Amino acid sequence: MSELKVFTIKKNIHENNAKVAQATREELKKQGTYLINIMSSPGSGKTSTLVSTIKALKDEIKIGVMEADIDSDVDAIAVQTAGAKAVQMHTGGMCHLDATMTKQGIDELGVEELDLVFLENIGNLICPAGYDVGAMKNIAILSVPEGDDKPLKYPKIFGKVDVLIVNKIDVIEHFDFRMDLLEERVRKLNKDITIFPISAKTGEGMDEWLNWIRKEIKTRG
Amino acid sequence: MSELKVFTIKKNIHENNAKVAQATREELKKQGTYLINIMSSPGSGKTSTLVSTIKALKDEIKIGVMEADIDSDVDAIAVQTAGAKAVQMHTGGMCHLDATMTKQGIDELGVEELDLVFLENIGNLICPAGYDVGAMKNIAILSVPEGDDKPLKYPKIFGKVDVLIVNKIDVIEHFDFRMDLLEERVRKLNKDITIFPISAKTGEGMDEWLNWIRKEIKTRG
Repeated sequence: MSELKVFTIKKNIHENNAKVAQATREELKKQGTYLINIMSSPGSGKTSTLVSTIKALKDEIKIGVMEADIDSDVDAIAVQTAGAKAVQMHTGGMCHLDATMTKQGIDELGVEELDLVFLENIGNLICPAGYDVGAMKNIAILSVPEGDDKPLKYPKIFGKVDVLIVNKIDVIEHFDFRMDLLEERVRKLNKDITIFPISAKTGEGMDEWLNWIRKEIKTRG
Repeated sequence: MSELKVFTIKKNIHENNAKVAQATREELKKQGTYLINIMSSPGSGKTSTLVSTIKALKDEIKIGVMEADIDSDVDAIAVQTAGAKAVQMHTGGMCHLDATMTKQGIDELGVEELDLVFLENIGNLICPAGYDVGAMKNIAILSVPEGDDKPLKYPKIFGKVDVLIVNKIDVIEHFDFRMDLLEERVRKLNKDITIFPISAKTGEGMDEWLNWIRKEIKTRG
């Protein structure tokens, strides 16, 4: 296992975010690297979902992960151990990544030979929703213990993402969580969203999510 | 039940936050109102903890709640139904409250005859940690499903609060969560923090938390 790269990102407020995001997307497309931006609350299971995904796909797809965190490098070590090329980005207190920061992560990671790169965004449902980071697809993870009312309270992120992963379905019987109510609330904001109920812990529902990734990568650019 | 007041707060970037916070604290102290700022991730149980707390204390303490949310008023309706005077504050996308915004909430709520006011801050562990809102005490809620590693990733908030409520202990057997490890990690950041493991759902551990509130209110000012 190679040494983990950890760096603090620099903020460049003078760049035009939409322009940088579009340039990133075009460059990645040209070289055949698919970028997925993953957003969620702390503890929803971004890292455990990634670890399960990497373990399942690492022999068929070359995967990289950019871990963005206020502090620590535990997540980057976890995904690196699972078999991904990884880089840890520290944001110095900022609560989201924009396209310029993401570009720094891509440059630090080195993505030329990678098929798929995940950006694990900073853990919250608010700030990251407003920024195009240059990804091909944007994904939110909501875990069952957080509650089925979250689309009512954070409509922006649920209205924007292409895919919603509902994690921790293995504990659904212990919570007052109605999947039908969640789906109804999400679809009111986002008619065409793809929803994958999964348990990263037990593996339930993972096949549909993995097949979605395989198909996305095959049909890209 | 009176009609619920819902309003959008205005941001005033010219005010000095520390000065406004201190003035708020002094004013509240003078009139005998105790303000507690509650912070957590979405779905940790801020509202359900408040609802249980209000139901238990409403006959002995006059309680008000300022609910801050990006959108919706479901939380304010819940605490109002439980027996608190409530106001819903909409932040228009901002991910925290500062002292000036909190002051607007206090003025809208009307706190003269209240013994205790809770500010339910915006649901995330990052932005709210940086702002003194003028409260006497700052509290974080972490729920068991979020994981015992959160102090490693969000050291600022765990290092700053006076009290940590660990909620959803009724489901602890279904998660890889070690209370001893959590406490060790938190105390490394914050030696003197008070920790209350509770279940707002089953009532387990609530007595210690309620007694803490009673004592704080009795010894204030």
